[in-house]
Amino acid sequence: MNAEPRIIEVRKNILKQNDIIARALRERFREVGVSVISLVSSPGAGKTAFLERTLASLRERCRVAALVGDLATENDAARLARSQAPVKQITTGTLCHLEAAMVQGALDAWDIGPLDFLFIENVGNLVCPSSYDLGEELRLILLSVTEGEDKPLKYPTIFNSADVAVITKIDLAAAVDFDDELAESNIHAVRPGMKVIRVSAKTGEGMDEYLEFLEQRRAAMRAPASA
Amino acid sequence: MNAEPRIIEVRKNILKQNDIIARALRERFREVGVSVISLVSSPGAGKTAFLERTLASLRERCRVAALVGDLATENDAARLARSQAPVKQITTGTLCHLEAAMVQGALDAWDIGPLDFLFIENVGNLVCPSSYDLGEELRLILLSVTEGEDKPLKYPTIFNSADVAVITKIDLAAAVDFDDELAESNIHAVRPGMKVIRVSAKTGEGMDEYLEFLEQRRAAMRAPASA
Repeated sequence: MNAEPRIIEVRKNILKQNDIIARALRERFREVGVSVISLVSSPGAGKTAFLERTLASLRERCRVAALVGDLATENDAARLARSQAPVKQITTGTLCHLEAAMVQGALDAWDIGPLDFLFIENVGNLVCPSSYDLGEELRLILLSVTEGEDKPLKYPTIFNSADVAVITKIDLAAAVDFDDELAESNIHAVRPGMKVIRVSAKTGEGMDEYLEFLEQRRAAMRAPASA
Repeated sequence: MNAEPRIIEVRKNILKQNDIIARALRERFREVGVSVISLVSSPGAGKTAFLERTLASLRERCRVAALVGDLATENDAARLARSQAPVKQITTGTLCHLEAAMVQGALDAWDIGPLDFLFIENVGNLVCPSSYDLGEELRLILLSVTEGEDKPLKYPTIFNSADVAVITKIDLAAAVDFDDELAESNIHAVRPGMKVIRVSAKTGEGMDEYLEFLEQRRAAMRAPASA
């Protein structure tokens, strides 16, 4: 009967420990001047295809790399490596999310100083990753048109933990009768004013606008503060 | 440094406690003669649409009901109620999976004796539900064609915890270049011989075969053992 308070206590300790590491990571990222962007979504929302296209486009004009989390297999790292950007896989075993310590471990012997952007692809999961800060500057939540418009209402916590919503697979919108207005109003019901970007990694639609957003944001974050 | 063994111990206790309740549930289901079938999948794989169609079809010839788990909202219960079958929502808050105790709680004041089938729709998640037995007779893992063929390799544990794989949204297979053979061989790489059913809840394709499978299985499970 007293098991529950003990579990909550242990969970709190894990999260507290994670926050400490995430804070140190964030400081390190800021010091070396790398923009760290993480991606969360349900499995199959198209994180890897979207990231592959992002890396391939950005590496023509800046220095990019990626960390990618999965329970098993290094398939995603292999897919992303096709972009020619440096990629490291984090295999989480049975763990359903990335933690800051895993990011720290993966970066251990990696000189991230020369990078402009580092992307972190989380495990496909709309629940657990929301509790774990990874020290990222920006968290993108991906939502594919095939998943239905109500995901923000059903998984509000993860939408709240993210900074930007990316609606993916928009080339399939008509085939699945996707109601874009409803999706956006559900996103804003959970997180008012959240920026919403629409892309198709397949056709490339929306990718330019998204990349421009990333670069503008990077420039703004790195502009010297005005007196 | 000694936090990890403690966490593992707590987790083991939770799972052990869950297994005890699940075993009691399974016994109760068997005694009253109800076939309990659970559905797991990633968010947006189409569990609710598939279940709505299942309930609407089955209730013409037998007594069906459903429990549906979600973090927030009662949207799914409302959708399923359109089938006219009795439906109860379990709202899990921040918990990313159903546990046997939640099923037990939801059934507390519910006379399930007259039922033929009880369906349990889990929270959309390909990781955590794999560890929690709900006392079900059959667990279906749904995989939509839009998620990609490699999901079984990336989430092997949940495929291993399930009895039947259901490939959903097959009406979209051509639009997303779904490689059915590859998907099946990935399923069988993780769980050799696993039954694979293909359906579209939208067009109804494959639903008859699936319903027939359920009814045959129910009949077989309830046939008096031969001497």
